[in-house]
Amino acid sequence: SPAAGYPFPLAPYGRSYQPNQGSDDDWDESSTVADEPGALGSSYPDYELSLSSRGGHMAGHLHPPGSSAKSSATVSRNLNRFSTFVKSGGEAFVLGEASGFVKDGDKLCVVLGPRGPEWQENPYPFQCSIEDPTKQTKFKGMKSYIAYKLVPSHTRQQVHRRYKHFDWLYGRLAEKFPVISVPHLPEKQATGRFEEDFISKRRKGLAWWMDHMCSHPVLAQCDAFQHFLTCPSTDEKAWKQGKRKAEKDEMVGANFFLTISVPTGPGAGLDLQEVESQVDGFKAFTKKMDESTLQLNHTANEFARKQVTGFKKEYQKVGHSFKCLSQAFELDQQAFSAGLNQAIAFTAEAYDAIGDLFADQPRQDLDAMMDLLALYQGHLANFPDIVHVQKGALTKVKESKRHVEEGKMELQKAEGIQERCNIISFATLAEINHFHKICVRDFKSQMQHFLQQQILFFQKVTQKLEEALHKYNSV
Amino acid sequence: SPAAGYPFPLAPYGRSYQPNQGSDDDWDESSTVADEPGALGSSYPDYELSLSSRGGHMAGHLHPPGSSAKSSATVSRNLNRFSTFVKSGGEAFVLGEASGFVKDGDKLCVVLGPRGPEWQENPYPFQCSIEDPTKQTKFKGMKSYIAYKLVPSHTRQQVHRRYKHFDWLYGRLAEKFPVISVPHLPEKQATGRFEEDFISKRRKGLAWWMDHMCSHPVLAQCDAFQHFLTCPSTDEKAWKQGKRKAEKDEMVGANFFLTISVPTGPGAGLDLQEVESQVDGFKAFTKKMDESTLQLNHTANEFARKQVTGFKKEYQKVGHSFKCLSQAFELDQQAFSAGLNQAIAFTAEAYDAIGDLFADQPRQDLDAMMDLLALYQGHLANFPDIVHVQKGALTKVKESKRHVEEGKMELQKAEGIQERCNIISFATLAEINHFHKICVRDFKSQMQHFLQQQILFFQKVTQKLEEALHKYNSV
Repeated sequence: SPAAGYPFPLAPYGRSYQPNQGSDDDWDESSTVADEPGALGSSYPDYELSLSSRGGHMAGHLHPPGSSAKSSATVSRNLNRFSTFVKSGGEAFVLGEASGFVKDGDKLCVVLGPRGPEWQENPYPFQCSIEDPTKQTKFKGMKSYIAYKLVPSHTRQQVHRRYKHFDWLYGRLAEKFPVISVPHLPEKQATGRFEEDFISKRRKGLAWWMDHMCSHPVLAQCDAFQHFLTCPSTDEKAWKQGKRKAEKDEMVGANFFLTISVPTGPGAGLDLQEVESQVDGFKAFTKKMDESTLQLNHTANEFARKQVTGFKKEYQKVGHSFKCLSQAFELDQQAFSAGLNQAIAFTAEAYDAIGDLFADQPRQDLDAMMDLLALYQGHLANFPDIVHVQKGALTKVKESKRHVEEGKMELQKAEGIQERCNIISFATLAEINHFHKICVRDFKSQMQHFLQQQILFFQKVTQKLEEALHKYNSV
Repeated sequence: SPAAGYPFPLAPYGRSYQPNQGSDDDWDESSTVADEPGALGSSYPDYELSLSSRGGHMAGHLHPPGSSAKSSATVSRNLNRFSTFVKSGGEAFVLGEASGFVKDGDKLCVVLGPRGPEWQENPYPFQCSIEDPTKQTKFKGMKSYIAYKLVPSHTRQQVHRRYKHFDWLYGRLAEKFPVISVPHLPEKQATGRFEEDFISKRRKGLAWWMDHMCSHPVLAQCDAFQHFLTCPSTDEKAWKQGKRKAEKDEMVGANFFLTISVPTGPGAGLDLQEVESQVDGFKAFTKKMDESTLQLNHTANEFARKQVTGFKKEYQKVGHSFKCLSQAFELDQQAFSAGLNQAIAFTAEAYDAIGDLFADQPRQDLDAMMDLLALYQGHLANFPDIVHVQKGALTKVKESKRHVEEGKMELQKAEGIQERCNIISFATLAEINHFHKICVRDFKSQMQHFLQQQILFFQKVTQKLEEALHKYNSV
């Protein structure tokens, strides 16, 4: 039940919510609160801030924008710290209450890599493009939606999916994998869904999401995702079957942890304090990452806005003033200045063009930066819960050791708790490892892209000025 | 006497005023109204708008800044259109009332060049540098002033002059030469005269003034200027002698026009309508020039301000945000990102440096542009009166023709009027010619300088970014 002052019940860790499961009814996006501040039917160049993704992608929740999201997230940490551990099934697992048969194909393997535990590589890595957003209609044109073409590289069979399919998939994954940071989808939006800029931006967000899905060894290979990627769009029956199969997955909650297979034998055990230390360090890292990505996103948004408005305006005012000057020289009857007025007029055009270059530049560099930051803010919003499941397990181990010393628990039972905590630790450390790798990969690539685009931009500006300077040679 | 609503008596065309002549008393600059808006004790980066120079350099007048200057100038055209012609001595000359002996050395020759009448070239062209502004004191340190070192290229003897000497010279020239556009001095200023930025800017303004003085065949060779340039600074007696000699010059007013020597013989006469047409065309040109240089000056001022504040701020905020991001990566314990955090930190510094480059850039390019525009606004403020003297003469010719037709004037007298108007026309056209030449010379040079500096700037920015991009190669 909600705590006083916090109006929204928080879903279990998986953040699933009834509407994603079960009913195949047309889910009308317009009934969802538009939770993107400033994005309602917005036309370019209003840049979206991904503030609401910080609160996590609360699929289906009436999730108010801005500060409430933040305070809800804070409350979730304070009140549900324990509950997340419980609700994810982590506690039940650690206490030995889970049991079931795990098929080989369902096993998630953690191996020991050069930098410690990591998810076993996907033996069949693949990618999937998101292309060609097209407006489709249903009910004789009464209902419209956007469909995207997906082309997975391992099947090369294109399928078409709409946002609600992505959203369904997200719900399944977030529910199933409490130790994994499932990337957040781009925001829902009630209005302006058919605006070209919105569609373009959403497509990019989905492409990033897809890249992170395919890059994760566990997520890439999971059944629900494969169903999403491969079920032919025309076969509604097959879709529903796969959907229900995923929704009936028994290896969820406490049972999920049974599927995790970890290294065994000498040298494979994890030192408790070492794990705690690493997890605490990671917590500090994600906190700082969260603050700095938020700040950078905000700065990028502002910088983009300034270029589109202020910078463009300043350079074009200079151009306009040069134009007036050239027009004055045209009035020179003695034609002393025939070449000069043309050169000055050309210079005026150069500055006007530079203004346009500034206005167009954010699309080339800052937009991509902000898309990436939005995706990472989603991940960073996931980690507190992942960390809490781990900490809950560690706490259980400490408690069990104390109970043994106090004679309240049998040693064998405590050892079982430690062993099962060990499994969670391997998984968490593997996930941390994965996050670091993908973080470095993405930020290196993004910074390079950003700088390359900035360099190209300033080179273009320089070139315009050099062309203008050249005109004075013949004066 | 002042017209109703216009509080200031307008001086005769020469704009001289008693205090510049006669008394050698220490003229306390602080008794002059500080007529530079926003420049009172201002420290960088408050850019001065040379608005008040539009009203002309009213030496010694209590000349309020801004709009009053503008309305005074307008009134002077309306009410004194006739008076300028009269007060300059132009009317008296045209009517044949001037007489006197003109020494060869005092003759100002107009010749026929490829583009029509022009001032005869100075056979001994020279330049003069303005260097080394130094604070001097008098009265045992009770009074301070800035002295500049002048080194004329034809004497190579350095002399020291202070602002009041320049001001005295200006007064002499403006009074003597009604057909010539005497460049205006940089503004007087009551406070902040010893600020480094002010001194530096004033020195540049004086250098521009000096360049235009030396570039003008008539001004360069005139006695008062030569006295100013060559009289040894230590010889106070010689200075006063030269000063009084200049102030006693008899070839002023109507007599001045006697010194103008024009081409004679067949093909040397000027067609009245042609002259009128050229002068009208020039009037349209100067009007448009005046508007556009004012606008460009204003735009340049704003552009400079924006670079020093807004642009710098935006780039440095980006740098700061990148810095925070790199600090987050430093918290990555597994040192996945050792190279990355350093590359991002380097990128942060690059953007910080780019912010500083923007802030420093106006000193490199826009400042020089604004200095030039201020000088030209002074010239453009002179031309209405020059044009009016010409038009007054043309009017007299038309009147005289009518009088002859009406039998009110003897033909011989009318012919004398035409001949003397012809002299004024030659001088005016020569001055117009000179202005066009110097205009093209200066604006070509200034635009080239501006563009070269802008190119250098953007190249520097690009280089910083390329250095930063390079850092990612080793990540």
